[in-house]
Amino acid sequence: MDGIPQGGLGAGKGTGKKKVCFVITNRVHYTRCKQLIQQLKNHPQLELQLVVAASALLPKYGDVTSELERDGVPIHAKINMLLEGGSPITMAKTTGLGLLEMSTVLENLKPDVVLVRGDRYEVLAIAIAAAYMNIPLAHIEGGDVTGTIDESVRHAITKLAHLHFPTNELSKERIIKMGEDPKQVHNVGSLDIEYLTTIDLSFPHDLWEKGPEGLGERFDLTKGYVVVMQHPVTTEYGSGRQQMEETIQAIDALKMPTIWIWPNIDAGNDEVTKAIRVYREHKKPPFVHFYRYISPELFARVLNHASCLVGNSSAGIKECSYLGTPVVDIGTRQGGRTRAENVISAPHNQEKIKEAMLKQIKNRKYPSSAFYLKEKTSHKIAEILAETEIDVQKQLMY
Amino acid sequence: MDGIPQGGLGAGKGTGKKKVCFVITNRVHYTRCKQLIQQLKNHPQLELQLVVAASALLPKYGDVTSELERDGVPIHAKINMLLEGGSPITMAKTTGLGLLEMSTVLENLKPDVVLVRGDRYEVLAIAIAAAYMNIPLAHIEGGDVTGTIDESVRHAITKLAHLHFPTNELSKERIIKMGEDPKQVHNVGSLDIEYLTTIDLSFPHDLWEKGPEGLGERFDLTKGYVVVMQHPVTTEYGSGRQQMEETIQAIDALKMPTIWIWPNIDAGNDEVTKAIRVYREHKKPPFVHFYRYISPELFARVLNHASCLVGNSSAGIKECSYLGTPVVDIGTRQGGRTRAENVISAPHNQEKIKEAMLKQIKNRKYPSSAFYLKEKTSHKIAEILAETEIDVQKQLMY
Amino acid sequence: MDGIPQGGLGAGKGTGKKKVCFVITNRVHYTRCKQLIQQLKNHPQLELQLVVAASALLPKYGDVTSELERDGVPIHAKINMLLEGGSPITMAKTTGLGLLEMSTVLENLKPDVVLVRGDRYEVLAIAIAAAYMNIPLAHIEGGDVTGTIDESVRHAITKLAHLHFPTNELSKERIIKMGEDPKQVHNVGSLDIEYLTTIDLSFPHDLWEKGPEGLGERFDLTKGYVVVMQHPVTTEYGSGRQQMEETIQAIDALKMPTIWIWPNIDAGNDEVTKAIRVYREHKKPPFVHFYRYISPELFARVLNHASCLVGNSSAGIKECSYLGTPVVDIGTRQGGRTRAENVISAPHNQEKIKEAMLKQIKNRKYPSSAFYLKEKTSHKIAEILAETEIDVQKQLMY
Amino acid sequence: MDGIPQGGLGAGKGTGKKKVCFVITNRVHYTRCKQLIQQLKNHPQLELQLVVAASALLPKYGDVTSELERDGVPIHAKINMLLEGGSPITMAKTTGLGLLEMSTVLENLKPDVVLVRGDRYEVLAIAIAAAYMNIPLAHIEGGDVTGTIDESVRHAITKLAHLHFPTNELSKERIIKMGEDPKQVHNVGSLDIEYLTTIDLSFPHDLWEKGPEGLGERFDLTKGYVVVMQHPVTTEYGSGRQQMEETIQAIDALKMPTIWIWPNIDAGNDEVTKAIRVYREHKKPPFVHFYRYISPELFARVLNHASCLVGNSSAGIKECSYLGTPVVDIGTRQGGRTRAENVISAPHNQEKIKEAMLKQIKNRKYPSSAFYLKEKTSHKIAEILAETEIDVQKQLMY
Repeated sequence: MDGIPQGGLGAGKGTGKKKVCFVITNRVHYTRCKQLIQQLKNHPQLELQLVVAASALLPKYGDVTSELERDGVPIHAKINMLLEGGSPITMAKTTGLGLLEMSTVLENLKPDVVLVRGDRYEVLAIAIAAAYMNIPLAHIEGGDVTGTIDESVRHAITKLAHLHFPTNELSKERIIKMGEDPKQVHNVGSLDIEYLTTIDLSFPHDLWEKGPEGLGERFDLTKGYVVVMQHPVTTEYGSGRQQMEETIQAIDALKMPTIWIWPNIDAGNDEVTKAIRVYREHKKPPFVHFYRYISPELFARVLNHASCLVGNSSAGIKECSYLGTPVVDIGTRQGGRTRAENVISAPHNQEKIKEAMLKQIKNRKYPSSAFYLKEKTSHKIAEILAETEIDVQKQLMY
Repeated sequence: MDGIPQGGLGAGKGTGKKKVCFVITNRVHYTRCKQLIQQLKNHPQLELQLVVAASALLPKYGDVTSELERDGVPIHAKINMLLEGGSPITMAKTTGLGLLEMSTVLENLKPDVVLVRGDRYEVLAIAIAAAYMNIPLAHIEGGDVTGTIDESVRHAITKLAHLHFPTNELSKERIIKMGEDPKQVHNVGSLDIEYLTTIDLSFPHDLWEKGPEGLGERFDLTKGYVVVMQHPVTTEYGSGRQQMEETIQAIDALKMPTIWIWPNIDAGNDEVTKAIRVYREHKKPPFVHFYRYISPELFARVLNHASCLVGNSSAGIKECSYLGTPVVDIGTRQGGRTRAENVISAPHNQEKIKEAMLKQIKNRKYPSSAFYLKEKTSHKIAEILAETEIDVQKQLMY
Repeated sequence: MDGIPQGGLGAGKGTGKKKVCFVITNRVHYTRCKQLIQQLKNHPQLELQLVVAASALLPKYGDVTSELERDGVPIHAKINMLLEGGSPITMAKTTGLGLLEMSTVLENLKPDVVLVRGDRYEVLAIAIAAAYMNIPLAHIEGGDVTGTIDESVRHAITKLAHLHFPTNELSKERIIKMGEDPKQVHNVGSLDIEYLTTIDLSFPHDLWEKGPEGLGERFDLTKGYVVVMQHPVTTEYGSGRQQMEETIQAIDALKMPTIWIWPNIDAGNDEVTKAIRVYREHKKPPFVHFYRYISPELFARVLNHASCLVGNSSAGIKECSYLGTPVVDIGTRQGGRTRAENVISAPHNQEKIKEAMLKQIKNRKYPSSAFYLKEKTSHKIAEILAETEIDVQKQLMY
Repeated sequence: MDGIPQGGLGAGKGTGKKKVCFVITNRVHYTRCKQLIQQLKNHPQLELQLVVAASALLPKYGDVTSELERDGVPIHAKINMLLEGGSPITMAKTTGLGLLEMSTVLENLKPDVVLVRGDRYEVLAIAIAAAYMNIPLAHIEGGDVTGTIDESVRHAITKLAHLHFPTNELSKERIIKMGEDPKQVHNVGSLDIEYLTTIDLSFPHDLWEKGPEGLGERFDLTKGYVVVMQHPVTTEYGSGRQQMEETIQAIDALKMPTIWIWPNIDAGNDEVTKAIRVYREHKKPPFVHFYRYISPELFARVLNHASCLVGNSSAGIKECSYLGTPVVDIGTRQGGRTRAENVISAPHNQEKIKEAMLKQIKNRKYPSSAFYLKEKTSHKIAEILAETEIDVQKQLMY
């Protein structure tokens, strides 16, 4: 922390490097930001201060700290901040706790700029800590329009941020419309898509052999399979069980080989996982294989070769637009997020879901969309961070 | 709290009234919201849940709880949340602590709507708690443009709020430009100006007799006096001492009877109060009278008859526009806030400040501006709250 | 909360009843305190203020709030305070968060005495909140000697408490030796044993039929079965996996019908559950049935008819002393806790564990011990609370 | 924090030094621990990790961080944790916040032992964080018997601590009686008295010239003067104003030159300071000089030459026993603290206080007592820390 003896944190002081504090808050987040982290670490004018927080510290969600060690990236601080419960109040409290913790870390690390990504509560906590402590804030993935509370939080972070890295042109325009300085808004494309362009996307034969073993029977993937990934909708807390039932019925009716990936820990998690658990235990469907966790590498390959992705994950809108994978997007969670032709929307209704799935499976792959793609996303972020002068006092542009 | 036996909080349940949770965070706040509180309390379709928090609980900043008792307004919860320190980090931490506490209170009170006012950290904490807990948020005083971190926080709260009560037409337009639903944005005028229209604004002869005694000599007010009220600028933390010195030199050069009101507790408070304290103790200026606290009633009368208000208080822009009192607004704190003709801006420069003051003193009263005035502000807020249906899922309007 | 209108919390004020605040922190805790809660609720001189906190609020650990509703016990406040992680730091942070929350609740409920039970972190948080807020503290289950951090915390709570309800004579003596006022130390026996005296203890035939279904095969219980219940040892964090392996090997070697009850959420939970999970998934032992949760009613009957209980649960020392069930107590967790003749100790060594188990199974039931038994435990606690005058200023008796 | 690159915190790892984390929580604390800090810093087997927390970070209570810089002692972390309010609930909340913050710091610094001093809430927070995180705790100043909540907290810390450094023989015996391991209890004498043995104790002629200026007239000290230092009594919250009035009346009746030192920030601070403030402003006593802050160096000299110390400070019992200064100890705050012949006790009664003061003034200096004195206190603490092996699992010794 501050005043660390023998060089430690003070190292950047004399060198005149700009200290960039970047916070990793979960496992998936880390994998998809590896290139960004390397760019920040190796940029001659930047000094990376890496903070690991929230579920990225919990072994059961994937061990980020030892992976960082293997990758040679030093950790400057660890923050435990996650309340147990998966309910609206624990989301609020996690934000409050994260704000208390993060401000101590910022006081001790004294970065020149804080870089955050996304729209979740950990990110809001960091943004507020930086804002009150007069530290310029750079934000990746602002300007998107979706459902859930993330929608409001994303725009609130935009209003606290000084430098913006939206992933697409429409989001860039929205950020400017909201009154941000156009000179500080840069469409650099999506880190998630950049990640896809750098990895092996071959058929996931090894899913059964090497991957982390899921629950349920194994089946032949080569004849086609669908993927389900449906998260709770925080703003519709209390309806999750029923919403999930509709999807379950659709899947149960189709009886196609299905890879089912566990929901995230947002408020409502209990409801939706209970529906899945009851289905699994009572029906023991031989055609479904359940994964609590799947590595981002494998997930990309599973998505790339799926006949259809069903649910409400942003991967359906973003990654699958690039991959051309057919998607059935259910409910309001991805609300207004700009979508390519690969997506069909469906309400929480088993008949409608089944119908849309059949249509998508029949259609097969769509052409790849470049909507969320830009070259050298990570490189550009690092460059802009290094070069931009930021005035900590913001003001609405109208 | 939730499940209170024998009627308690459950009282509103059967009645079908809409439960409005309103939070008071400081003494001045309370006085200027008295009419609003009475409107909320007496509205046939509303049930008021009043929370007292932050400095409103600290006797040294004025005892709100016993005043509420005298006014017959029951308190539903008290929240201690204020960190000592007056620095950027303590503002961040107070927000985090407030968020932890406020979410517990909301969990136990279960309001139908939360009503907040302004742009300070306590308010941001409440807004986030409500947002994550799927409770609709109504916000008074959004859309203004100013300096300090309040500028960013104000707009972040707007992005979390569902129902907006700006105080003027320009702010209403800005809120809509930021992508809020025009149907939910209501220019109801300023509570502060409504307050002025209801009280005695006669010459403050009794300042020396009955009011809370300040420090320093008494002098004859009837020959004219100036008022100084200059707060720290959070985004210029570290410059406060020098900024205040310039104002002090200007005042010391003019040697006019001066009523000096103590700065607020924002980050930088230490710096600016030190400058004042040193001036007071070393120079013992016989023409300055210092007030740590002045009641809103007396403050309004003092403002109304002042030859000039100097500093960076929003009262110079808002209250004085209605009163027609000449104002010298120093520095960036009131940044882009819309001003009537009564305001002259000045940088942190003693010569410029003195010059502007002389011009304003010579000019005398300006005509009253109606920019921040609307009839029945409090009544309208209560009416709109009672009648508006709010969908908890927001979405950007473009 | 404080100032609740229309009677609510103020109800007790005029009646002159002593307000007793009792906090339930988990599901098992509630079942075993039902009689105490009824005694407190129905005592003519007492008014019960019930707070539900920590894991008692999380549906996945058993839904206490709806059970309280069924039992007609009103809840005065709910406190979410549990951090996710099951590590030393999350135990510390949960205590800190609980202290922040509990002090707000006490400020708003203003009880005359706070009653707590046990030695866990939630309880320490409550004890400290009460201590600093000058509210007398009564403590059930002090004076025992065990292992883990609970040992230190239990005695720290004793030093903060004004009134003591140890469960046995030796513990009473220890509390007095530590410098507490002998007049305030009452051996009332154990609530856990009182609970056993009031319920059906017949053979758990219905384990397979009605109880919450566990994981694994069913088998014939009537030919004898053993029960395993081994929790993490917080002060030996990092050794849990190896410790559990020894027990697993012993069980796997014996191949007797085994009911295995899941460990609690103390620091180290991840380690020990991982060992069990790997065993279960790799070996799929047909003679073991795993329970994540078992109701206290069923647990008592399972214990009563077991050939042997193996592990480090306090139930082995307390409940089984009364039931006469043979116990193999492993490691340091129950350290110095006074044991009846039914307990054999064993180190973390599979051979020693197996040997001890064989000896115990052969021995069959021991005679019942009355060491932890007193008549009317709950009734006495309520009586003493009603009658005792407490001076909030404590002082060491030597 | 953990994983700091380029040596930083990892420096001690390879060297095999024992990492001692010591926390400074206020300005006075620092001065009196300077020798201890130097001993810890320079010991060949120890590596000092210094944390600055609570009021030690607030400029208005004396700037510790810049003094540490001057003294060449690096700071490893800073913790803001102090709530504003000076009431029972803010003491509780400060403890909770400190616990949250301190556990993050310990997680990142990973010390081998944590060293704390005293019995205040910041210290309890640190003790609990260390306890749950399995870090051995060493405690200075345990075993004393006093009044206020500090009495209970002190013994609670003893029950969490592994290694004890009481300041006198009686306290050592009490710690052992409470069940601690006699091998881990070392009477090393008082750091406060060691401090007195190393500084200039000459007549404070320079009080008026160089020292930080107080409020009120100056007067001739050489004809004799009394010192008043009376703190709030947390366990008698609500009675502070009346208690202080009695002392004020006694002082006002004697009309001797009086140096009055401001009370500390414990709960009740508002009450007692209000009494002083009203007295000062209404009576403007020409014979009293008020100090908000006095440096420890000057305080020692002021004490040494005072005709009498009046109030309830521990300095009356400890420092003055060594200096031989006559003391009138009022009320319960110093309760059972072992006192030398220099102390006369008095209740909160102006007549009794005046009477006792007259007796003490007449008596003049007492002989010096060695009750709290041992040679090389700081050196011994460092030595014992370096040499002692600590088993993190404690257990009551009976």
